[in-house]
Amino acid sequence: MNSHIKAVDINNVWKFFNLGGTVLVEGKHGDDIDVMPASWSMPIDYNKLGVVLDSTHYTRKLIEKEGYFLLALPTVKIVKELMYLGSNSKNDVDDKVEQSGLKFFNIEGCDFPLPEGCVAWAVCKVLKEPHNEKTYDLFIGEVVAGYADDRIFNDKGEPTFETAGEELSILPNFGGAYFYSLGKRVSVPGY
Amino acid sequence: MNSHIKAVDINNVWKFFNLGGTVLVEGKHGDDIDVMPASWSMPIDYNKLGVVLDSTHYTRKLIEKEGYFLLALPTVKIVKELMYLGSNSKNDVDDKVEQSGLKFFNIEGCDFPLPEGCVAWAVCKVLKEPHNEKTYDLFIGEVVAGYADDRIFNDKGEPTFETAGEELSILPNFGGAYFYSLGKRVSVPGY
Repeated sequence: MNSHIKAVDINNVWKFFNLGGTVLVEGKHGDDIDVMPASWSMPIDYNKLGVVLDSTHYTRKLIEKEGYFLLALPTVKIVKELMYLGSNSKNDVDDKVEQSGLKFFNIEGCDFPLPEGCVAWAVCKVLKEPHNEKTYDLFIGEVVAGYADDRIFNDKGEPTFETAGEELSILPNFGGAYFYSLGKRVSVPGY
Repeated sequence: MNSHIKAVDINNVWKFFNLGGTVLVEGKHGDDIDVMPASWSMPIDYNKLGVVLDSTHYTRKLIEKEGYFLLALPTVKIVKELMYLGSNSKNDVDDKVEQSGLKFFNIEGCDFPLPEGCVAWAVCKVLKEPHNEKTYDLFIGEVVAGYADDRIFNDKGEPTFETAGEELSILPNFGGAYFYSLGKRVSVPGY
């Protein structure tokens, strides 16, 4: 396992997903795993994350069966794999995840294999909300475990993207294949 | 009015808010106006935006009375005003908005004064969802009008932050006063 991966306090996981980067959504049921990118995702509370998942997605079906999902925060490093995962469906391509080139690692105590090339991961338990799922394709999960790469945050819990290098940048998205990296820290007068 | 401001197709407004920057949320009722920053915001559909608004916020009360809210996408230029708006409440400070230094402009056909120093604006009609509002402080709005600064997108609807200059960057946030600017366009192999 990557020695940079650290468990994160459940109530601090939201900060990583607050940055607004595209996420990878992973669903699994038994040996069946699917991963899709999503950019309609946000914290709903200090220990809750929300994500919009269209009903046609194979990943969503796995999440509905299992009652859990994983959100991961991918970096510039795997933008090619991410685009493949978003352009192909496991409804059509059985070995989509393998074909994407995405690799995984395991961490003790976590049932989800974690995608490599990411800087944060959150395991979420679905809070069943049939109306939201049906009307808005909106899934809300309670964070039950979180991990992050210690090159992007320090002991005080402050972000350190500015020293981590562009390769570890998250991927803000403007729809389609329009991605940006993170830029500089913005200094705020008085803070 | 700033000559760079253009109306945007309602179904394309989500892309600006897809980038994940901090937003300003504006509520108004009669002459009463309040503005607060929020980072828990995302597209819920191609013509819908969601935002989490704690029940203590004065802005929320105005939105509940009026049934509409405005989301704006602030730039680096107004980070100081944004922090003031987020650190003070109109419950305590009557002239909070004036004190923040935030300025507004008007646009024909739009009832909301639009905050300056932003690059996109969306007028949203609240889709009443009492359960979401009560349980998750989640408000979902249907976009009824959208505007953006034509320095950050071109005639094809593609983003152009890379040529717009850092001053027009949005503000991804890691909680508190930890903001970043947008960096470079990330090239995606094959796209």
